[in-house]
Amino acid sequence: MTDFAATKARFHLPEGMIYLDGNSLGPLPKDAPARMDAVLREEWGEMLVTGWNRAGWMERPRAVGDRIARLIGAEAGHVVMGDTLSIKVYQALAAALEMRPDRRVILSDSGNFPSDLYMAEGLTEMLGDGHELRVVEPGTLADHLTEEVAVTLVTEVDYRTGRLHDMAALTRAAHAVGALTVWDLAHTAGATDVDVAGCGADFAVGCTYKYLNGGPGAPAFIYVAPRHADRVKPALAGWLGHAAPFAFEQSYRPAEGVERMRVGTPPVLALAALEAALDVWEMTDMAAVRARSLELTGLFIEEVEARCPELVLATPRAPAERGSQVSFRFHEGYAAMQALIARGVIGDFRAPDIMRFGITPLFIDEDDIRRAAGVVGEVIGGRIWDDPAYRQRSRVT
Amino acid sequence: MTDFAATKARFHLPEGMIYLDGNSLGPLPKDAPARMDAVLREEWGEMLVTGWNRAGWMERPRAVGDRIARLIGAEAGHVVMGDTLSIKVYQALAAALEMRPDRRVILSDSGNFPSDLYMAEGLTEMLGDGHELRVVEPGTLADHLTEEVAVTLVTEVDYRTGRLHDMAALTRAAHAVGALTVWDLAHTAGATDVDVAGCGADFAVGCTYKYLNGGPGAPAFIYVAPRHADRVKPALAGWLGHAAPFAFEQSYRPAEGVERMRVGTPPVLALAALEAALDVWEMTDMAAVRARSLELTGLFIEEVEARCPELVLATPRAPAERGSQVSFRFHEGYAAMQALIARGVIGDFRAPDIMRFGITPLFIDEDDIRRAAGVVGEVIGGRIWDDPAYRQRSRVT
Repeated sequence: MTDFAATKARFHLPEGMIYLDGNSLGPLPKDAPARMDAVLREEWGEMLVTGWNRAGWMERPRAVGDRIARLIGAEAGHVVMGDTLSIKVYQALAAALEMRPDRRVILSDSGNFPSDLYMAEGLTEMLGDGHELRVVEPGTLADHLTEEVAVTLVTEVDYRTGRLHDMAALTRAAHAVGALTVWDLAHTAGATDVDVAGCGADFAVGCTYKYLNGGPGAPAFIYVAPRHADRVKPALAGWLGHAAPFAFEQSYRPAEGVERMRVGTPPVLALAALEAALDVWEMTDMAAVRARSLELTGLFIEEVEARCPELVLATPRAPAERGSQVSFRFHEGYAAMQALIARGVIGDFRAPDIMRFGITPLFIDEDDIRRAAGVVGEVIGGRIWDDPAYRQRSRVT
Repeated sequence: MTDFAATKARFHLPEGMIYLDGNSLGPLPKDAPARMDAVLREEWGEMLVTGWNRAGWMERPRAVGDRIARLIGAEAGHVVMGDTLSIKVYQALAAALEMRPDRRVILSDSGNFPSDLYMAEGLTEMLGDGHELRVVEPGTLADHLTEEVAVTLVTEVDYRTGRLHDMAALTRAAHAVGALTVWDLAHTAGATDVDVAGCGADFAVGCTYKYLNGGPGAPAFIYVAPRHADRVKPALAGWLGHAAPFAFEQSYRPAEGVERMRVGTPPVLALAALEAALDVWEMTDMAAVRARSLELTGLFIEEVEARCPELVLATPRAPAERGSQVSFRFHEGYAAMQALIARGVIGDFRAPDIMRFGITPLFIDEDDIRRAAGVVGEVIGGRIWDDPAYRQRSRVT
């Protein structure tokens, strides 16, 4: 049993705000400033360069990776931290293409997060030689799996609608035609009880500043399935992914396993904030979070729909098909979201018409959900954004 | 006139230590903890996701880049922060190769920092099609400039010997055969009065955790010459380098100028520490630092050579030919350096036989130099590392 009141107490949540945007940037863990201060003063300040060994900075990317592994169903020792999610997407795709030299297609869907598509586009254009990013309609990926496909690139939870892809089925289908899979877990890690090992995923990547609450610009992670980890060839062959970084050899020799996906100097300070965030995750497990998430997203859908017939649910109604966010389509969604934010209910807007609410059990409870739905009802029902007094106010602030 | 006593007072330097390893990791600026705490509590904690706009997080990579530009002689608006140095090397090389499609050779030298060579190796192997990393002897680069060479990759200050390459002459020579230049400024930025614009460099990259004192894992920078900035094609086509990141378009359109070299979400926390470090740099300019650096390196060479005939100077004696470090060759250098560190004089060792001392005027003064040289004399002259009492002690601690 997780005590979610206790996890909530571990975050700083500004007075009077209901923060339903933890799927964009999670809140500050109360312990993060002290942890960061210790790393600054006691480690960097006192140890200086010896911190790489004495404070264990050099090993942190793997140690923190192990804490992430538990949350995404990965085998311990097969997740490593560093860089940004876009870089990790590139690494995974380049490694997969190298493993399928007679194939040229990266298959993705138009619901994918644009940066993933851009990185794939940049990679295929650089490689030339018939390499191609093929982008199909969401939900039709399995129909486009042919023996041309080297690798699929799918964000498991659609960033706009919150729709969950079936990782196990899509991975099986990809493998059936000999393709590999790269799963982007940006909206999955800390949101659903994903099981990357159980699903047979080949590569998984994700960021840590959303549901995991690691802070703005927190480092990304990459998982490489154990069966591939010792044979993938890193395209970004940085010294920290070398078998012996401090031997300063002239040629690259990959480190063992997923360590070869490290590139440059570890982001020690950013990892400190992330570690404080991961301490809160030690108080629970993903099965408990998933159960709670479905209760809360279900309640939010119910409470908002009861008040706002204008809003059209964009998120799947079936619990098994959604992640941990609720999105509604509304043609005046942008203005309505601004009005909600002005009243302390923080969600966000994604073009053309999606109002997005992240439902994050570590710090959102039923009371927040009911109060937020009440404000949504007032704002939408009263068309607050049309009110001259509101418009005057919002120009000033 | 720079008041170097005042810049020194801005750093936390542990009691009893003379820190001559700022060329590996600079010390903690005293203002960094407070700056970081403000970013954590007042920005992340209170603003949450609105910090991207309200706290200007989104613009920081360019704003901080401008502060670096001043220190490396770059035009304002043409330096941007992010990722690690290895990633920036890759971006610059990939962009240069794309600009010289009929050439296949990256030319570098074996004195280059290994990670630069590894990244180039990974890139050429991925591209295939005859692409090649050609590594020649240090000092012979100009002799190997042919019309096969697409781009040169040179670390301006050799990380082992501290030897300075002639950026202006090598850039001219490269341009004369139609090659482009990528300059790695890892041991240059904050160390010498480099002038990337004046030298006509095409690309320059560097890290900020050495002489710039940005902290462990501080973000890297990249400079693209204004004449190229609007036409280079990013290989790492991330959303933050898109012309309109939040339009979530399906295809990549590069942002204007160097902004296209941004990739993923900016490292907001790491940038906070770096900004505190850059505040100290506002107290001086590179001409003053360079003059002071040459005085101090000259003094250190003189004082050490007077005491230790066993040590062979590896750094050029001619001031114009060296960066801001002093290296000595000594066959027992590893053991000797351990003994020095045990006595509070922190340098480092690079195989096979190099004892390396970073001389950083922002926080090292004549008194430090004289005291350090005195300890070097005692340790080397007395062969302290052979002393049974020392050996006993160093096994225990």
